[in-house]
Amino acid sequence: MSYTAPIKDMLFVMSELANLDAVSALPGCEDATRDTAEAVLEENAKFVSGVIEPLNHAGDKEPSYWHDGNVTTTKGFKEAFRQFADAGWQGLQHPQDFGGQGLPKLVGTPCVEMLHGANLSFALVALLSDGAIEALMTAGSDEQKATYLEPLVTGKWTGTMNLTEPQAGSDLAAVRTRAEPQGDGTYKIFGTKIFITYGEHDMTENIVHLVLARTPDAPPGVKGISLFIVPKFLVNADGSLGARNDAHCVSIEHKLGIKASPTAVLQFGDNGGAIGTLVGEENRGLEYMFIMMNAARFGVGMQGIGLAENAYQKAVAFARDRVQSRDLAGSSGPVAIIHHPDVRRMLMSMRAQTEAARALAYVGAGFHDIAHHHEDEETRAAHQAVYEYLVPVIKGWSTEMSENVARDGVQVHGGMGFIEETGAAQHYRDAKILTIYEGTTAIQANDLVGRKTLRDGGKVAKHLLAQARATATQLGELESGDLAVIRARLEQGAADLEAVVDFVLANAKTDVKAVFAGSVPYLKLAGIVLGGWQMARAALIAQQKLSAGDGDTAFYQAKIATARFFADHFVAQSSAMRTAIVDGAAGVLALPEAMF
Amino acid sequence: MSYTAPIKDMLFVMSELANLDAVSALPGCEDATRDTAEAVLEENAKFVSGVIEPLNHAGDKEPSYWHDGNVTTTKGFKEAFRQFADAGWQGLQHPQDFGGQGLPKLVGTPCVEMLHGANLSFALVALLSDGAIEALMTAGSDEQKATYLEPLVTGKWTGTMNLTEPQAGSDLAAVRTRAEPQGDGTYKIFGTKIFITYGEHDMTENIVHLVLARTPDAPPGVKGISLFIVPKFLVNADGSLGARNDAHCVSIEHKLGIKASPTAVLQFGDNGGAIGTLVGEENRGLEYMFIMMNAARFGVGMQGIGLAENAYQKAVAFARDRVQSRDLAGSSGPVAIIHHPDVRRMLMSMRAQTEAARALAYVGAGFHDIAHHHEDEETRAAHQAVYEYLVPVIKGWSTEMSENVARDGVQVHGGMGFIEETGAAQHYRDAKILTIYEGTTAIQANDLVGRKTLRDGGKVAKHLLAQARATATQLGELESGDLAVIRARLEQGAADLEAVVDFVLANAKTDVKAVFAGSVPYLKLAGIVLGGWQMARAALIAQQKLSAGDGDTAFYQAKIATARFFADHFVAQSSAMRTAIVDGAAGVLALPEAMF
Repeated sequence: MSYTAPIKDMLFVMSELANLDAVSALPGCEDATRDTAEAVLEENAKFVSGVIEPLNHAGDKEPSYWHDGNVTTTKGFKEAFRQFADAGWQGLQHPQDFGGQGLPKLVGTPCVEMLHGANLSFALVALLSDGAIEALMTAGSDEQKATYLEPLVTGKWTGTMNLTEPQAGSDLAAVRTRAEPQGDGTYKIFGTKIFITYGEHDMTENIVHLVLARTPDAPPGVKGISLFIVPKFLVNADGSLGARNDAHCVSIEHKLGIKASPTAVLQFGDNGGAIGTLVGEENRGLEYMFIMMNAARFGVGMQGIGLAENAYQKAVAFARDRVQSRDLAGSSGPVAIIHHPDVRRMLMSMRAQTEAARALAYVGAGFHDIAHHHEDEETRAAHQAVYEYLVPVIKGWSTEMSENVARDGVQVHGGMGFIEETGAAQHYRDAKILTIYEGTTAIQANDLVGRKTLRDGGKVAKHLLAQARATATQLGELESGDLAVIRARLEQGAADLEAVVDFVLANAKTDVKAVFAGSVPYLKLAGIVLGGWQMARAALIAQQKLSAGDGDTAFYQAKIATARFFADHFVAQSSAMRTAIVDGAAGVLALPEAMF
Repeated sequence: MSYTAPIKDMLFVMSELANLDAVSALPGCEDATRDTAEAVLEENAKFVSGVIEPLNHAGDKEPSYWHDGNVTTTKGFKEAFRQFADAGWQGLQHPQDFGGQGLPKLVGTPCVEMLHGANLSFALVALLSDGAIEALMTAGSDEQKATYLEPLVTGKWTGTMNLTEPQAGSDLAAVRTRAEPQGDGTYKIFGTKIFITYGEHDMTENIVHLVLARTPDAPPGVKGISLFIVPKFLVNADGSLGARNDAHCVSIEHKLGIKASPTAVLQFGDNGGAIGTLVGEENRGLEYMFIMMNAARFGVGMQGIGLAENAYQKAVAFARDRVQSRDLAGSSGPVAIIHHPDVRRMLMSMRAQTEAARALAYVGAGFHDIAHHHEDEETRAAHQAVYEYLVPVIKGWSTEMSENVARDGVQVHGGMGFIEETGAAQHYRDAKILTIYEGTTAIQANDLVGRKTLRDGGKVAKHLLAQARATATQLGELESGDLAVIRARLEQGAADLEAVVDFVLANAKTDVKAVFAGSVPYLKLAGIVLGGWQMARAALIAQQKLSAGDGDTAFYQAKIATARFFADHFVAQSSAMRTAIVDGAAGVLALPEAMF
């Protein structure tokens, strides 16, 4: 059973929920019509199913390996990356000036989801390159852009992100890597970076490392970090490759999952210093790296959604195929397990969470496009603010839900799920990194509380809640048992989320630890309520289409049923989550450290 | 960091919640005094920490392997099992007549928890032998008992449980293995069994397979299954080993976790027939196997609790050690991450779930002992009924929670958690089997709904709820903010669980699928409310001890804080779970199969 991109749902979300028509009306996005979008998605689906997904299990069984400073990737990866790059998929969302296709994020996002859904390990290399491209586009000099962008956009080279050091994980203030100016505009870089995804590989002739380091007189903490380009091979003026730089991979990690993706320890400067050039200005490295990280965080959210979709499809295929026990309502012999209510419950749970997270993420992508392309500055700013509120939710909640979905995927398989050849266990292992890298869920939650809620006094959050309530009102105008339930749950969910936002605002100054004790539950609550809002919107539209006798009846009925499930099984958790946040901080913080 | 048995909490639960004094007053249990129990636990703790736990990571890195029909277990396992057996740990709960120690289940259970906590893969062989012993004690002939029990109880041999076949997982009606009577009291067995834990190994000279098979004229379905003893080596009249039996291991599985524990495919009768003897009467095999399975199900619940405790300890040790970022309330430099509220929340969540599940399981063990040893028949029957209600909850809920705890354990470690050498990832992988084998959570939930709730019209469930409410009333008599919150949550939880029991009773005949669509949520709700009840009892006792100025103040304060956390973060979920069950079935069952 292989992965099939859920194109029908993707197009529904893009067109009906994420406002594709408005995006394609933006200057520079005129190509992104419904027809073009559909054609792009279909082409991408064909490519990932044919070329990328077949390498997923192989990559798990025969991971990339290290020898003498080199990394050999899983057989087939190099050729697949070549095809990926040559077909233009790396450049899909990047400017045509540098060899890209220039499509908006709303059209690129489903393609990213498919790539991750098909093969998380493979897709990571593209995700990191995307981040490097965004950072250089924003902060690179003209010379740097001229040298590095086209090779990255066309997939001739790949990019990496070098933040973490042994003593500096989430805490970038602790970065120690040094950058010594050479007086000729270059710097020599000395230090050790760990957890560098695709920090070394054999898929392209060069690798562009973006490295955080400190210059000699830099202030301590995050205000003294600068960003450098340190290519694996130096680049000559004509773009050809020069000498091997003093940046070497000394080992790769033995990991729980995403085994085909090499996670490198990189040693800079052990043989005299690695040559780097400064990106932008000194001491603004964190700011530039955040450009890269925000792009990557959204991408990791898409990893969660893609993986969840694949795990769901695998579980459905198994549940249709596996015959075991009679039907509870009576049958002459054993039936496929998809007939058993608890299997059905798990499949619905997997499906509903995946659809809700997809809808929220694509809506976020639509906001991103308006924020970047709209002619009106105020409109851009308003959409950017919503997008920024959504990024930690999309990253944090989509990945947390993907762990649950992958877990249920194993469970549907029963004993067979525990056997590695089934593939369900690989999803379970792969998923576990998603809530950790590019900032753990707690880091996303800190961002949501600090920069995204406290800084604007909850303005964006309340704006979104007002819109969710407007959807609830619209639902009340239609007659349907399911829609009435969805409406009631959404109203309660919005009330609970608002109470939590108020709690955060009211207590941040006086009891900061209590607020942050509830930060991850707040993030999950936001995901469930805002995801539930998207499912409610979807149900509303589906009901309108059904009433109008318009289109695919079975699809719209399924959308309403899935929205109803999400309302009863997820949005209905909102009050308990509010309790855990508002009343629950006491229990979190009561135990003295010595008593753990 | 190595596993340290939580003896203080174990003894508190045994003495204060699970009524150790009443158990040690039972005929045949006189040895089980508090002092003896404490001595046994301390000795066992020393043994598992010194001998068993050091093999846990090794077993994951160098799993047991198959060659030519033989299985070589991880280096050190054979010697450790010899020490385990020689010290009498295999026989702890088994009769002195057959070489055991004859201690009650309430004293044996913490030892079982420790063994599983230290090394799940190793402990499995003992768990399976325990099950085989219980089945033979109940249904074996005198001759079978004389031949097999002492070698099993003393760990000279080990036992296995052969149910599953490729087409028969949870559905034993589909068992096809044949047993042909030879006219001399023996049978020849032909068939394939899969997923046989320790079905082949090199740790003992013989293995006693208990095998489900059909005799020639057996009726179809589960009513035509008989149970047979099929030893790896036939046993001579004097107890010495005879010929190699025709039962061979043709492969072992490549699994997600518990890798040191060989999971065998066994082929019976490929060379003329494996010789077996019938246990009890023909066609009553399922009944006998259920004896074994119920013991094993309780044991798997203890696996979940032991693993959760170990994962919690690892996470605490890491969180104390890892320095990263400043304290939110202000600090001059970075602090250990245990100071960060979200890390604290995860640790409390791990701790609270583990303590609640432990308390419920030990209380169950106490009921088991009274059910087996009390002089009054009615008392025995009443306690047996409660024990049987609790078994699927202890198995299902303790293992489901252990997945969450193992997941949080990785999360606390951040990026390091994804690297295999940390050991957190091993817990995450190992835990995943616990909700599957010995009956998936759905199978446990079917049992809870069918045999344990519908059959007695909810009598036992409501009896337990009445007791939980009595605890709530007692809590109301004490003055404390924490206890008032715990009381309110428990009362709401009891109301929600009662509503669900009523829903199950009211709809089982008219809408069986809707009832079973909520069966797993019902099981989890029962776990949370009944586990929450035990935590409430613990808090009540702790408060009484504190008021009396009696004993370990810090321990009792921690118990109240942990109970408060459990109430706010888990018991508070009860209403949402009730909604998912009572209103949520519609969404579970609405989607036509073709639309998945």
